[in-house]
Amino acid sequence: MTDLPSHVEIHEEGPREGFQIEPGPIPTANKIRLIEALADTGLHHIQACSFVNTRLVPGWADAEAVVEGFKAKPGVHYTGLFFNGNGLDRALAFKDKLTINGSISLTASEGFTRKNLNRAPQENIDAMKKHSALQESKGVAVTRIGVMAAFGCNYQGDIAPAQVISTLEDGLAIAAEAGATIKLFSLADTMGWATPMRIERVINEVRNRWPDMTIALHLHDTRGLAVANAHAALKLGVTQFDSTVGGLGGCPFAGQPKAAGNICTEELVMLCEEMGIDTGIDLDALIEVGRLAEEIVGHQLPSELIHAGSLDAFRRKAA
Amino acid sequence: MTDLPSHVEIHEEGPREGFQIEPGPIPTANKIRLIEALADTGLHHIQACSFVNTRLVPGWADAEAVVEGFKAKPGVHYTGLFFNGNGLDRALAFKDKLTINGSISLTASEGFTRKNLNRAPQENIDAMKKHSALQESKGVAVTRIGVMAAFGCNYQGDIAPAQVISTLEDGLAIAAEAGATIKLFSLADTMGWATPMRIERVINEVRNRWPDMTIALHLHDTRGLAVANAHAALKLGVTQFDSTVGGLGGCPFAGQPKAAGNICTEELVMLCEEMGIDTGIDLDALIEVGRLAEEIVGHQLPSELIHAGSLDAFRRKAA
Repeated sequence: MTDLPSHVEIHEEGPREGFQIEPGPIPTANKIRLIEALADTGLHHIQACSFVNTRLVPGWADAEAVVEGFKAKPGVHYTGLFFNGNGLDRALAFKDKLTINGSISLTASEGFTRKNLNRAPQENIDAMKKHSALQESKGVAVTRIGVMAAFGCNYQGDIAPAQVISTLEDGLAIAAEAGATIKLFSLADTMGWATPMRIERVINEVRNRWPDMTIALHLHDTRGLAVANAHAALKLGVTQFDSTVGGLGGCPFAGQPKAAGNICTEELVMLCEEMGIDTGIDLDALIEVGRLAEEIVGHQLPSELIHAGSLDAFRRKAA
Repeated sequence: MTDLPSHVEIHEEGPREGFQIEPGPIPTANKIRLIEALADTGLHHIQACSFVNTRLVPGWADAEAVVEGFKAKPGVHYTGLFFNGNGLDRALAFKDKLTINGSISLTASEGFTRKNLNRAPQENIDAMKKHSALQESKGVAVTRIGVMAAFGCNYQGDIAPAQVISTLEDGLAIAAEAGATIKLFSLADTMGWATPMRIERVINEVRNRWPDMTIALHLHDTRGLAVANAHAALKLGVTQFDSTVGGLGGCPFAGQPKAAGNICTEELVMLCEEMGIDTGIDLDALIEVGRLAEEIVGHQLPSELIHAGSLDAFRRKAA
């Protein structure tokens, strides 16, 4: 009936997602402090920064300073997000410190592609062809297809699973043209439209089509269902999730400044641990980092768990 | 594999849970405004107030004024919480306006009974025997057994399902002695220890023992898992839930002032509606009431959905 994994790999994106959306500039030293604290919890994948246009995303004007500044922990993969050749070059300048994976980024919603990227779907495909060729030409293997708005879209409404399939087919065609071998599909619930039933439907359809592909989920808690969605995915054997400590992030697309961000790493870890699924992460240490994140941004974060404390902490007290 | 109900009955407890915990006094007129707005969403069960010791819970010193003040909507059941004879008498003064159901309230955790009620378990059972006889003697049929801390306890740690069973057996013995017929077991996750697996285990064990009893769940979102827990319960066919609009409430037992309250009514309604389960509630109207609740308490409430807006609202815009 269920297909629970024994281990789940969590990719922490709190620094990148969280600090791009905060209104005030976060001091570089605090970004470094958070990244280093995260690495001490047992997390093995941390997205440390975003190499984006600093005019459009001033919160990441210090990307280079952050990467230079943090002390890398052996065994931890640090990444930086990039969308174009300029961002890739900035990341490659740190190729000894960062793990640099090539990616094809598509959107299952035409409405979102037009409104968010200001591109027609075909223009976006053409851009991704160029970007894929560029990545491969610089020795960065393109191994991942990311699909945004895979479960629904504020601009377009419901997204049919067939649309996700066809978007992945577009991605595979782009990869083939670039001579790339895709190893992972990352499905993003960019605007918080997923429900457990929708998660099941989309994952089952993608698996029917590509039984051997690894599927990762990037969930947002925009409407409070992220943990329920993760639970549904875990029961289907999904083994890789993106998340943010404290629920850092917010959703710029929901059109509501108070809208929640990504699924909280610590709530995801708690769910896994209570289900007997190993994450390699020390939950109590992670909760402390969530509290640090709250201190750094200077306002309450969406995570409930950092305010309540872990079950294990109470178990120890009660014993 | 699943046993989804076609309809779910939601008992709104936002006014009662929410206003007892807010630090500032909430004006009586605002409590009335919220209760009346809730009744206009299609909710059929609203806990309007708490007839508790006004010295201990000053936030409910105006219980009588609130019940006198709101305009009752036909078809809606309004209730007031009471724990003792004095509270019952205060409720009975409004027997034409309030629905008054008798209840036996027990706790699956000895630690919680001692720390929260300052009673040994047997003392609590004796108190409930007296309270049951009193309710029946006043013509209030005792039809419900409530079990607090049914999924775990901050003072005692994990609670075995067998402990829930034996607590329910205690309750049934109390009921039998009072000549009462129990129709409902209400299992409360008072301190946010439930996980989907624990929900499944406890409900299955209770059902194995009492296959025909209706089970209601009172979930708290203390650690962010409430919606996932509700989803697990819905898949088992549970048809009755308590919840609070906006996630009003907070958890005084978690020892953290920022800890979350009950499961949000609007997130529960969204989950049901997206699963094709009827609640009779207008979600967009309810979201507006959640925003009103936030305005009334003067700070951000835990509900994510009231900040993001419903999927249907975006579907209409996109169409």
